Amino acid sequence: LNKVFADLPVTIFEAMSQAARDNAAINLGQGFPDDPGPEDIRRAAADASLNGYNQYPSMMGLPELRQAIATHYGHWHGLKLDPMSEVMVTSGGTEALTSAILAVVQPGDEVVCFQPVYDSYLPIIRQAGGIPRLVRLEPPHWRLNEDMLKSVFNSKTKAVLFNNPLNPSAVVYPREDLELLARYCQEFDVIAICDEVWEHVTFDEHKHIPLITIPGMRDRTIKVGSAGKIFSLTGWKVGFVCAAPPLLRVAAKVHQFLTFTTAPNLQAAVAYGLGKSDDYFLSMRKDLTRSRDRLTRGLESLGFPVLKSQGTYFLTVDLSPLGLNESDTEFCWRIVRDYKVAAIPVSAFYEQDPVTSVVRFCFAKKDQTLDTALERLSDAV
Amino acid sequence: LNKVFADLPVTIFEAMSQAARDNAAINLGQGFPDDPGPEDIRRAAADASLNGYNQYPSMMGLPELRQAIATHYGHWHGLKLDPMSEVMVTSGGTEALTSAILAVVQPGDEVVCFQPVYDSYLPIIRQAGGIPRLVRLEPPHWRLNEDMLKSVFNSKTKAVLFNNPLNPSAVVYPREDLELLARYCQEFDVIAICDEVWEHVTFDEHKHIPLITIPGMRDRTIKVGSAGKIFSLTGWKVGFVCAAPPLLRVAAKVHQFLTFTTAPNLQAAVAYGLGKSDDYFLSMRKDLTRSRDRLTRGLESLGFPVLKSQGTYFLTVDLSPLGLNESDTEFCWRIVRDYKVAAIPVSAFYEQDPVTSVVRFCFAKKDQTLDTALERLSDAV
Ligand SMILES: CSCCC(=O)C(=O)O
Ligand SMILES: CSCCC(=O)C(=O)O
Repeated sequence: LNKVFADLPVTIFEAMSQAARDNAAINLGQGFPDDPGPEDIRRAAADASLNGYNQYPSMMGLPELRQAIATHYGHWHGLKLDPMSEVMVTSGGTEALTSAILAVVQPGDEVVCFQPVYDSYLPIIRQAGGIPRLVRLEPPHWRLNEDMLKSVFNSKTKAVLFNNPLNPSAVVYPREDLELLARYCQEFDVIAICDEVWEHVTFDEHKHIPLITIPGMRDRTIKVGSAGKIFSLTGWKVGFVCAAPPLLRVAAKVHQFLTFTTAPNLQAAVAYGLGKSDDYFLSMRKDLTRSRDRLTRGLESLGFPVLKSQGTYFLTVDLSPLGLNESDTEFCWRIVRDYKVAAIPVSAFYEQDPVTSVVRFCFAKKDQTLDTALERLSDAV
Repeated sequence: LNKVFADLPVTIFEAMSQAARDNAAINLGQGFPDDPGPEDIRRAAADASLNGYNQYPSMMGLPELRQAIATHYGHWHGLKLDPMSEVMVTSGGTEALTSAILAVVQPGDEVVCFQPVYDSYLPIIRQAGGIPRLVRLEPPHWRLNEDMLKSVFNSKTKAVLFNNPLNPSAVVYPREDLELLARYCQEFDVIAICDEVWEHVTFDEHKHIPLITIPGMRDRTIKVGSAGKIFSLTGWKVGFVCAAPPLLRVAAKVHQFLTFTTAPNLQAAVAYGLGKSDDYFLSMRKDLTRSRDRLTRGLESLGFPVLKSQGTYFLTVDLSPLGLNESDTEFCWRIVRDYKVAAIPVSAFYEQDPVTSVVRFCFAKKDQTLDTALERLSDAV
């Protein structure tokens, strides 16, 4: 069987969610909220299931959703997208990323990735025959610098995969880092595949800047988004790809043979959701900021050194000052078993030379869930 | 960009559906019904959207759906499947097939395919580095024979892709052909990837026999099914893969990086649907038999030589006796433009040495739709 896939472990998210079920633990591992998601959007899906269209929609997505996506990014970022030639709907952010990678990467191409790296990137790059070139990011700031880029960009570099806001590190990259990356992409004629599924989940003064809006990047960036993350409906698996027509055209050819299209009842509900006023997005951020702060304060009061989260559903804890004598992975397997709380070891996001002292917790949960988790963890350190 | 995909045309289904929209034509091309699909199943999806789970389900699919799939095949075919280790839910039949192909095929492997061949197979085989070995099937019977298999199976053959009931030819293969294929699979130690999405749509005395139930095939067959086809809800994109654990395990590793999982509200509705009594499936077949007969009689009375359909939503017409002096492709583009009826040229399913005289029509439509299409076609020949 195919060596690229045969020996892979089950994703850490699935493995840890299974361990949470097996141990009746509170699951602060895999990133999903424990509330049902916005009722009006779920009602729109219910209406579309009963009264709307349930047969094949256009392969590229419902025209009304593609228009809504273009309008949304125009409004939030001044990004002008042609809905018909520059926007495609996919069955989730994962399919969007896989379509983009398979569209761009050919055997022998080098692809720059940043560790911590989301677990779908490297296997799909390798399936395409590409060669990952890994940059190692480090706590507490996880920032990019020129030496890192200099060491990996070269004439064989075909693409860079860049996740911002960065899961699991909860960093929202400032313009300075984006401009540095953009300069290297242009100098080496590289395509940027940008996993921006967490774009709306940002806190405090941190604002997400799409790489595609940095000068020089408009025609060399494939932007990936996810309605599941935007609307806290992670199971829906409705994603988007935005890119200039020559790039989108090839990603669409991949998409047509990965899933072909996406359920139109869910697409219609997402189109409805994207029509919400700014208030919706701002209040979602405010609610998540409260949850972040609640878990941050609780963990700090238990003695955990929390690295402040700038975005995503996640915060991280650096175990190193605690002198625990165990890795992040050992810690996570211990707490799910002994304290009935699941979390994700950040070392699972490294293929080489892992950072082994950082643990990720998901705070997109009800107060009650967070409080119970904190109680359970009260003597974990 | 990736040569495997960059130069591919848009699928004929999408292209012809677009032409149907552009010409305000009746679309008897792409295979989907023009009714909304079973109301109770759509209501189950609506309920699950409002009151059920909308966050990430298990990567392998909802346990209740995996159980329902195992029970369903046990009931219809006496096939015993372990729902936890032998059943996976995917985002449609296309993703199921792509997961299976990428799980099995490695660079240099030969893969036997039968023309007419569904359009996703060859690009994905090539993306995996595989080498398609094409068998040419022919009207009016489209049957397999030993010479065909002898000419392509060899020690490099890794897999065979087999679609039964066969789209576009509307053939349901008899046990004799399946046993012949099974013998070659065993002799050359080959894995069979079986696209059986049309398994429930069979007519008259023709019954679908899953290849996995033929002696010797249980552990070397990957069976692909589709709830969209079973329940005439083609947009939902809920598919399944059934295979022995060593095969399914690798297909799951691919799936986790193609889409990861599938909307749980739709999965719950499909689980409900699979619980329907035999009557549902038999009456669906009866309704489609009526539609097939209506379109068959109508086309025959206009002078079209119809090849009798044994299954699928489709029937085919052989233009060759008509002396039209145009290919199937020319015929289809002419009738969508001049008669406002879209159909699919069967030559689009051949990569080499096409059969160019056969046209596919979808009859899964309201009587009124079929009658209007027939009226419009009244002087097309
Ligand atoms: C596809 S499961 C993982 C979800 C997620 O983004 C995370 O938990 O990091
Ligand atoms: C995925 S669109 C094609 C649908 C279909 O099975 C067909 O029309 O043949």
